[in-house]
Amino acid sequence: MVATRLEADEARIRGLVAEIVAGIRDRDLNALRPVYASDVVSFDVEPPLRHVGVEAKLENWARVFAVFRSVEYDVRDLTVVVGGDVAFGYCFGRLHGTLMSGAATDGMWVRVTLCFRRIDGDWLVVHDQASVPFDIVSGRGVADLEP
Amino acid sequence: MVATRLEADEARIRGLVAEIVAGIRDRDLNALRPVYASDVVSFDVEPPLRHVGVEAKLENWARVFAVFRSVEYDVRDLTVVVGGDVAFGYCFGRLHGTLMSGAATDGMWVRVTLCFRRIDGDWLVVHDQASVPFDIVSGRGVADLEP
Repeated sequence: MVATRLEADEARIRGLVAEIVAGIRDRDLNALRPVYASDVVSFDVEPPLRHVGVEAKLENWARVFAVFRSVEYDVRDLTVVVGGDVAFGYCFGRLHGTLMSGAATDGMWVRVTLCFRRIDGDWLVVHDQASVPFDIVSGRGVADLEP
Repeated sequence: MVATRLEADEARIRGLVAEIVAGIRDRDLNALRPVYASDVVSFDVEPPLRHVGVEAKLENWARVFAVFRSVEYDVRDLTVVVGGDVAFGYCFGRLHGTLMSGAATDGMWVRVTLCFRRIDGDWLVVHDQASVPFDIVSGRGVADLEP
């Protein structure tokens, strides 16, 4: 019974990741909004250090969508761990597609960590972090690695 | 009773973060080792994309310790969320101190996410991510932000 509930919770969380992917592919902020807690704290790929709140998170997605005419999002090696009302997942993610200029881009692989709480009966993203590694000596982000 | 257990778990997890800070300050890999699960998956500040296993994680700390003659680690804005046997925390962290060259460094603030499981009765770090933001246009890591 416990295992069954954990399996159902893991399936729901994997479904939320799929909703994020679909929301990105459709460039649809209204589809992304319900995935996030209102007070989500996000450590995103680009500055600033931290976004607080779903509106800031969605503005960040809006900036991404402004760059792409069409966009895909690949997820690789997704691991999900579920407890009672707390869960986390991590994976690699890659945005790619056709830029507004018409140029195709392969994008870059980022490391993604997603943290969830069950709130009012359903799971929401309450925290995430996404990044590329940093080469301290050169000061450059390392955006050409493949998992 | 449930609240009491969650409070005890949160205190233990905050204690683990304090153990990480103490292990860094003492440049003591043997103090850091028991904090991590044997199969910890780490998305660390510097390349590669991912370290797998506690030995790889400790080698990364050893590389940090090789750079510093003396080192401090500041933690700011630590949030901890605990479920049944799963928890996560996030904060800002900053390594600073005196380099082997004798020069002082203020270091840089990184974003840190730590994911925990209760394994055989005690909490361990099973996943973490630490990063600075990435300026996509310039290709540079952004290491001069303060939370």
